[in-house]
Order: sequence, then C-alpha cells, then structure tokens
Amino acid sequence: MHITQHTDYALRVLIFLGANEHRLVTIQEIAESFDVSRSHMMKVVNQLIRLGYVEGLRGKGGGLRLARAAGDIVVGAVVRDMESDMELVECFGGESRCLLTRSCRLRGALSDALNAFLASLDRVSLADLLSAEERRVLFVPLAEVGRNTG
Amino acid sequence: MHITQHTDYALRVLIFLGANEHRLVTIQEIAESFDVSRSHMMKVVNQLIRLGYVEGLRGKGGGLRLARAAGDIVVGAVVRDMESDMELVECFGGESRCLLTRSCRLRGALSDALNAFLASLDRVSLADLLSAEERRVLFVPLAEVGRNTG
Repeated sequence: MHITQHTDYALRVLIFLGANEHRLVTIQEIAESFDVSRSHMMKVVNQLIRLGYVEGLRGKGGGLRLARAAGDIVVGAVVRDMESDMELVECFGGESRCLLTRSCRLRGALSDALNAFLASLDRVSLADLLSAEERRVLFVPLAEVGRNTG
Repeated sequence: MHITQHTDYALRVLIFLGANEHRLVTIQEIAESFDVSRSHMMKVVNQLIRLGYVEGLRGKGGGLRLARAAGDIVVGAVVRDMESDMELVECFGGESRCLLTRSCRLRGALSDALNAFLASLDRVSLADLLSAEERRVLFVPLAEVGRNTG
C-alpha cells in the first residue's frame, strides 16, 4: 500500500517552500535538495500551481513561493488533489468485473478506512510539518541562494 | 493510492469461503467465480493457508474451508498480513535518500493516517462482510457443486 511518488514529491515541495517563505525558490534548488530529476519536479510544481498551492513568478529574479499561508494548507487536501487514483481496489473504478460489486460490504469497509486515512491527514497543516529541524535543514539564507544554485 | 490485487483477492477468497461454510470449496470454483487465473488464485490461497486463515484438505473430495469462524477473522489483520509493502512513501523503507528523513514530521503524519486506516478495518470481521446478498450471490448448494465446477 502506498501513495504515489508524485504526491510524495508534492508534499516535499510544499515543505521546502514553507521552510523558505522569506524568498523565491527555483525548481532547480528543490530538485537538487531532494535528488529528484528537474523534469519530474517541474510536473509536480506545475500541478501545484494549477491547484493554487504554489505561485510561480516568471522572469529574471522569478521563482516559486507558497500561494497561501502554511497554516492554511491542509495535508489531506493536498493528498486528495494530487492522487489521481484513489481506487483502493479494482471495484472503486468504473470497470469492475467482480460479481460482488453491487452488494459488496468490503467496498464499504475499505471506503470507511480510506476516509479515516484522509481525515487523519485533514487534521495536519503544512505549518504543523515545519519543525525547527526541518526549517534548519531546508532553510537557505537569501545571501547564499546564488552560490548554492549556480 | 491502492492496496495490492493480491490482498484484494485474498479478501474475496475469504468472503467466498465464508458464504460457503457448509462445504469444501475448490480453488477452481473461486477462480471462476471472480474471473481470476487459477495460478494467481493458488498463490493467494497458499498464503492464506500459511497464515492460518484457510485450511486445505488434500485428496479426493478435498478442498478449502475457513480455518476459523468468520467472526474471528479481522479484516485489518488480513490486510496487514497480506500486504508485503506497507511503505506509504519511499522513506518508510530502509533505503531513503530524502534529506528530511531523520526529523520528518510528514512521515509521522502519514504513519498516523495509516494506523487510522488499519484501525478502521480492525473494527470489521469477515462475518460483518457477509451480507444476505453476498451469501445469495456466492452460495452454492452442495447438490450443485459437481455440476458447476465440472
């Protein structure tokens, strides 16, 4: 059982931006920090921009920042928005061939469990994830930005 | 986000056996009922036997049955036992390269959510899944067993 890498990276991007709220951040920096390819990170960031979690400023001196305060970004909502496939089992999708589908109580039990999973993450905001240690690890002072990212 | 097909099928096998507690069932029957290959179903059943959920009686007239009462089989336990990979994200495994791993609060939040998911399924037994409708769809009277499965 797992959430997609896409969602995992989206959460890391938000954590990185949250730890560097004082400045604009480049995709390159985030990709290097988490050792992920720039093109994969670009897809993740573009989706976060479309969804209204991140703001991208173009041009020289441009970059990324959170589009909302970290306290207003709910982790459960990010997971719901980023996961394209919340089909825990085949029959959650449209094309189930299982003969139980119409009356299945397992489906209801799994659906309840998924709701419990998301409800747990609905109680957590991005601000809650930003421990002092995370800010220390990810924080890059303005003065060092040019040197670190080339 | 999804659970493995392997776990999905294991739950269906248990539901089938639960709906036919009055007799022994063959793998062939279950595979045909759910339109799944016999070899895949065999792997699932063998694991259920090893885990003590199912009993297999060999020889002529042999077959499968639940090894415990349906009310004593907890769905959350079956999911835990069958899912080889409960690593929601990369860093739940041993080989994470994420620089946040040691201090990450996201990991804790996801771990809490996974526990909420499983706790929800711990409140459901196999007996709870066996609605009258499921028993009706899956139940095969003893007299028809020979005719149905050849």
